[in-house]
Amino acid sequence: MNGRAVRYFIGHILRWEAILMAPALIIAMVDRSWGAVNGFLITMLLLLVVSSLLLFIGQKGDHSMQAREGFVIVGLSWVLLSLIGALPFTLSGQIPRYVDAVFETASGFTTTGASILTNIEGLCRGLLFWRSFTHWIGGMGVLVFVMAIIPLSKGSGESMHLLRAESPGPDVGKVSPTMRKTTRALYAIYIALTLITFLLLVLGGDPAFDSFCNAVGAAGTGGFSIKNAGIGAYSHYSQTVLSFAMMLFGVNFSVYYLILTRQARRGLMDEELHWYLGIILATLVVLVINTRSLFPSLGEGIHHVFFTICSIITTTGYSTVDFNLWPELSKWILVLLMFMGASAGSTGGGMKVSRILILIKSLGNQIATMLRPRSVHIVRLNKKMVEDSTVRSVHVFSLAYFFILAISALIVSFDNFDGVTTLTSVIACISNIGPGLNMVGPMGNYAAFSDLSKIVLSLDMLFGRLEIFPMLLLFSPAAWRNNG
Amino acid sequence: MNGRAVRYFIGHILRWEAILMAPALIIAMVDRSWGAVNGFLITMLLLLVVSSLLLFIGQKGDHSMQAREGFVIVGLSWVLLSLIGALPFTLSGQIPRYVDAVFETASGFTTTGASILTNIEGLCRGLLFWRSFTHWIGGMGVLVFVMAIIPLSKGSGESMHLLRAESPGPDVGKVSPTMRKTTRALYAIYIALTLITFLLLVLGGDPAFDSFCNAVGAAGTGGFSIKNAGIGAYSHYSQTVLSFAMMLFGVNFSVYYLILTRQARRGLMDEELHWYLGIILATLVVLVINTRSLFPSLGEGIHHVFFTICSIITTTGYSTVDFNLWPELSKWILVLLMFMGASAGSTGGGMKVSRILILIKSLGNQIATMLRPRSVHIVRLNKKMVEDSTVRSVHVFSLAYFFILAISALIVSFDNFDGVTTLTSVIACISNIGPGLNMVGPMGNYAAFSDLSKIVLSLDMLFGRLEIFPMLLLFSPAAWRNNG
Repeated sequence: MNGRAVRYFIGHILRWEAILMAPALIIAMVDRSWGAVNGFLITMLLLLVVSSLLLFIGQKGDHSMQAREGFVIVGLSWVLLSLIGALPFTLSGQIPRYVDAVFETASGFTTTGASILTNIEGLCRGLLFWRSFTHWIGGMGVLVFVMAIIPLSKGSGESMHLLRAESPGPDVGKVSPTMRKTTRALYAIYIALTLITFLLLVLGGDPAFDSFCNAVGAAGTGGFSIKNAGIGAYSHYSQTVLSFAMMLFGVNFSVYYLILTRQARRGLMDEELHWYLGIILATLVVLVINTRSLFPSLGEGIHHVFFTICSIITTTGYSTVDFNLWPELSKWILVLLMFMGASAGSTGGGMKVSRILILIKSLGNQIATMLRPRSVHIVRLNKKMVEDSTVRSVHVFSLAYFFILAISALIVSFDNFDGVTTLTSVIACISNIGPGLNMVGPMGNYAAFSDLSKIVLSLDMLFGRLEIFPMLLLFSPAAWRNNG
Repeated sequence: MNGRAVRYFIGHILRWEAILMAPALIIAMVDRSWGAVNGFLITMLLLLVVSSLLLFIGQKGDHSMQAREGFVIVGLSWVLLSLIGALPFTLSGQIPRYVDAVFETASGFTTTGASILTNIEGLCRGLLFWRSFTHWIGGMGVLVFVMAIIPLSKGSGESMHLLRAESPGPDVGKVSPTMRKTTRALYAIYIALTLITFLLLVLGGDPAFDSFCNAVGAAGTGGFSIKNAGIGAYSHYSQTVLSFAMMLFGVNFSVYYLILTRQARRGLMDEELHWYLGIILATLVVLVINTRSLFPSLGEGIHHVFFTICSIITTTGYSTVDFNLWPELSKWILVLLMFMGASAGSTGGGMKVSRILILIKSLGNQIATMLRPRSVHIVRLNKKMVEDSTVRSVHVFSLAYFFILAISALIVSFDNFDGVTTLTSVIACISNIGPGLNMVGPMGNYAAFSDLSKIVLSLDMLFGRLEIFPMLLLFSPAAWRNNG
């Protein structure tokens, strides 16, 4: 283990966390919310001291790393971001219990959007801003951001291992040698799309503060709302803007990159994109029919169902209506969308459409192999062969997903809530959605869970956002040994 | 596709179904239940005519086959067994609707034990006997039985493909060249263990008829009871006999074979056996503590919890108490046991302990590979390396399990029952258990489901019992093409 590299990168990340807290601090100062101001100032001071120390002892020398260091840095820095990012909530006294604040912050950074708040509007604007802004920071990845900015010693070895560990989706020929350049381009697209969403919301007449919070929540596919009524508090126009925004943030960003670099044809031919859009359309039809009697008009039904599907498939978790009251078929379809999630390389969570595609294709492959054992059968995505090692890692990833789900639900079931609440709370956290069904439905929250459950669910959010392995390795003694 | 082989083997199987109906017919005659007598006679006549025709046109010539024919024969014969085995119920008028009778019969042969009957004791003894006896026939495998008896043309090529397709568990060095001999030995063990259970029950004072039905239900890990009160209707002594019987029928039969052939040490060192027994013990401790307040004494608690765990882990589904009233933690542990099921090569269903072991080990393997990409990492079971192709097929099997579960629950959710009922009804059917939770709990039944759901759940039972692929191939056009 190269401890120097770990210290160096984590130092940079914590320094950036302090910098990114500044806008929230300013808002708290303008509003004269002195409790929050104190909270932010103390936290930022702590971050600056710790990060300076880490950078001081880690700055010089060799920052080269293997896959192991990449995983450890990513896992550790996300845990630290959440633990320290939670301090302003507790120091301000507005979320008195630290475990609640950590849950809320992990939920923010991982773009889950699950909340323990029973009265969201009771929070001051500075903290509401920070809470929503964590979605935007976490959506695209903190390390991706830091990597695009800080000086790297040599080559792209570090960036490769760090980005591999942080970026979502199965690794199908995504790591390029010009990654740093690409990373900057992707971040530029992210900023541009967020700004467009923000402007469209402002143009519709929403207050700038609300528009900003809702835009970054959609951009990161997070789902924290600043109103108790959720997105139901805004106009149909704003809801429609957010529907399309969510849908677009659930697309693999390399599609936009290809379109911008005049390879539109290649971008639009992406197999995952077709399935993603196709699934939205198909579920829209089924759910509109299934929920027909619940809405006064067909138009109203289409409007709310489209919003809900975009919110759930992208794992945002915004809501305009209480889908917990929908028929079982609709709810079950939503749960399946929760599992699947959005596209790889988007800000959305879940297992990702491309993984599901690889799973289904490898299932077909297995049948073909059973029927004709002597022929060679391969899995293709976008007409290219998917390596056996990728197929295998998709298999292991999916099974690990179910294992973590099973064990987490086991622990959460100690709280003795009904089975649907237990199960969907875990799914909603591990897939980074936020709302589940029953007690954790769109009109519910996570306040009633025990501390143990809140810790488990917070870890689930991190497991989900970092796609399991960086977190799993943190718990593996082998990752910390010095040899090898 | 060698159609001759398909006709030949299915002919033999259907002829045996007629023969195996004889005891039930005799009981119906003794009881003068003329409706049932008619039902059995007509069905047996139909079976004899069809099987004679199939054997007549399939007897001569080449019965050699590839994996494909093996899967098709196994899948098709199980579907036919259920469809035809259901006739006596409907012809007698005692289960008037044919779709209900098919559900009940598929549930019998697949050793699921899920019932659509609201008043079990309303059935005549002949039909009750046939209903329970299907568990015994299906438990060990119909083809295993037929293969041990009928003349085979040459070599063991056919037996290999047929047994591979029908026998449960991952294929870890189980197919031997002396398979026919082994098969007969395994069937002898099955008969002996069933007889011992039967005798122990009779010695405890239970009527011979009840003892027989309960013994074959435990032997096949089926779970049909002939009383409305389930096994709760019998003495603690009988319940204890059945607890241990179920536990023993959930062990890989090759362990008994090794013990009988003086290789006890090798048999008892089996890794799956240790995990199987360890899991029973561990869950016993947790569940006894968790349900402590529900029983008048600790002894009573241990008695019923042990019975329930043995019933669920072996996927039998017998019940002495209503575990649907237990705390959520206990219920969730039972659901996880439902997924896992018993040992490979036993009469139990579910995913099998050894598959779960391979899954967990391959997960550890993936982590090791991520940490040290240049080293070679292998999965071991019983200190022997598990082939990559086996690991892969275990992965694909498990994922296919979840896919079928998801799609089935989607269809069953049309009925608009609560989520726990929908989900556990599918788990209980695909894992061949019988009871689930809520509406399909130990005191409930499957009567209220729609015909569509009953058909889907019947297919799920067959998917589960035949371990997915033989059934999946039946639906695959490629399996029916003549070339290849």
